[in-house]
Amino acid sequence: MRSLGHQIVAEFYGCDKALLNDVAYIRNHMLEAAVKSGATIVTETFHHFSPHGVSGAVIIAESHLAIHTWPEYGYAAVDLFTCGDSVSAETGFNHLREALVAGHVSTMEVHRGQIDMMSVAEDKQPAMKLAIG
Amino acid sequence: MRSLGHQIVAEFYGCDKALLNDVAYIRNHMLEAAVKSGATIVTETFHHFSPHGVSGAVIIAESHLAIHTWPEYGYAAVDLFTCGDSVSAETGFNHLREALVAGHVSTMEVHRGQIDMMSVAEDKQPAMKLAIG
Repeated sequence: MRSLGHQIVAEFYGCDKALLNDVAYIRNHMLEAAVKSGATIVTETFHHFSPHGVSGAVIIAESHLAIHTWPEYGYAAVDLFTCGDSVSAETGFNHLREALVAGHVSTMEVHRGQIDMMSVAEDKQPAMKLAIG
Repeated sequence: MRSLGHQIVAEFYGCDKALLNDVAYIRNHMLEAAVKSGATIVTETFHHFSPHGVSGAVIIAESHLAIHTWPEYGYAAVDLFTCGDSVSAETGFNHLREALVAGHVSTMEVHRGQIDMMSVAEDKQPAMKLAIG
């Protein structure tokens, strides 16, 4: 299936709870995951919540990485969305899995922007517009 | 199924190509989608790519909204990740669908952080650690 992007939706359970609450640690390892995966970092933003929890996103030239942590549950939700053939979302995933000391992981992989769907969408444009185009 | 978060993975096809390339427009409507959905905006970052395309993320107190646009294909990938009962990801989704004048949309909904999985993860901790705890 030809698609523009590839997304790993990852659930990290049984992680180190203290690390999940350390915004500097999470940020550093998200950036390192991006670099190791071969991505080009464009911009990033991270936030520590009171009393606990970290959220953040790294916009890369090839889409984004995002994380939300629930230290009280030892759980982190991680999304690794990449496009192009030069970036390995799997490498970023493996880096974060080790960094967060995840006990149990589940993943789902999604093809984003299916090329075949684009012509379907074009077909749904009003006939007049197609005639003009 | 009890879960911490709810994610709408949305594919917007056949969108207005000029709007998809307008970073100010995309940013404004992502922020408006967050506000309309009842979310509390924490931080955000958006970027316009050369020659075309916009990427951005809005970190909300209840997780995040993210977008990547491919104006040349009339396509946008949108993720709306929320937690708690007070935020409606659907409202944000509907706002963006209208704002981007999407011709065809497909969505997938994912439960993130399944509460039942947390005990499974705990069980996978080393026995010694459980004995000490």
